[in-house]
Amino acid sequence: MSETVFSGRVFKVVREEVDLPSGRRARLDLVKHPGAAAVVPIDDQGRVILLRQYRHAAGGWIWEIPAGTLDPGEDMEQCARRELAEETGYSAESFEKIAELLPAPGYTTERIHVFVARDLSPAKQSLDPGEVLEVHRVDLAEARAMVADGRIQDSKTVCGVLLASARGQE
Amino acid sequence: MSETVFSGRVFKVVREEVDLPSGRRARLDLVKHPGAAAVVPIDDQGRVILLRQYRHAAGGWIWEIPAGTLDPGEDMEQCARRELAEETGYSAESFEKIAELLPAPGYTTERIHVFVARDLSPAKQSLDPGEVLEVHRVDLAEARAMVADGRIQDSKTVCGVLLASARGQE
Repeated sequence: MSETVFSGRVFKVVREEVDLPSGRRARLDLVKHPGAAAVVPIDDQGRVILLRQYRHAAGGWIWEIPAGTLDPGEDMEQCARRELAEETGYSAESFEKIAELLPAPGYTTERIHVFVARDLSPAKQSLDPGEVLEVHRVDLAEARAMVADGRIQDSKTVCGVLLASARGQE
Repeated sequence: MSETVFSGRVFKVVREEVDLPSGRRARLDLVKHPGAAAVVPIDDQGRVILLRQYRHAAGGWIWEIPAGTLDPGEDMEQCARRELAEETGYSAESFEKIAELLPAPGYTTERIHVFVARDLSPAKQSLDPGEVLEVHRVDLAEARAMVADGRIQDSKTVCGVLLASARGQE
């Protein structure tokens, strides 16, 4: 049993009856999401490009790496390249996938593919009407400090900064 | 303008018309979530207690730290203590908050408070009927390896393992 109870622009909500491995049946409300790509863009000086973005759901301005929802027919690297250019005004020669993340596996099907991008060059920034953000460049060591002291709270950004650092992406 | 378009057991969905700092108005669909607590439980041998949990939204079994949604009237540390006991069968003497995470600030208001718990002792495990999970103990270094090679994909667990490690919680 699967019933669509809400259908919006970014996600829909379905109520499903599922058979659990325990043998029980459960009724779950799930956010069905097309998936997303996120990018840790690192420039030639070892600085990461971070967005200071207004997020109504988070109650204000937060720090994030560039990211966005998969468009129909797109693959994840195309999505990462598109979002990098649209949000930051940079394109990148090199894209390397470093993680797949489940942001909230209790209730959303969203899966975020995280890339490190290098060899940056200027491209055309093109924000959606609803996007409100500033583009900043921050040393990777400073980004780690922002994670450690709680200035960065967005999960994909915490993961992206720490995973890129652990791989020696400096 | 704020209209509830779906109301379920764990979250509701509201459609809001909001004034952005850019001066534009935008219509957003938001998952309204009460918030959650997550726990990195570390035993006297430096092992972290991880759950192998069946998550329908994620398509199967995944690795997670114990976590759960805030009950009405609860504070975050109470929630963390309750979820630790219910899911793992351990209580902890010491709770230290290490992070607040935004799992998906584009569309959900959820905020996850992450704690490190130490000085563990046996308590009464008490799973919800819909929870299907196994309790494992893993060296913190092995948990970091599981993050690095992609066996751990849940964002709060990636963040929890890496942040606890960075604070020298070994």
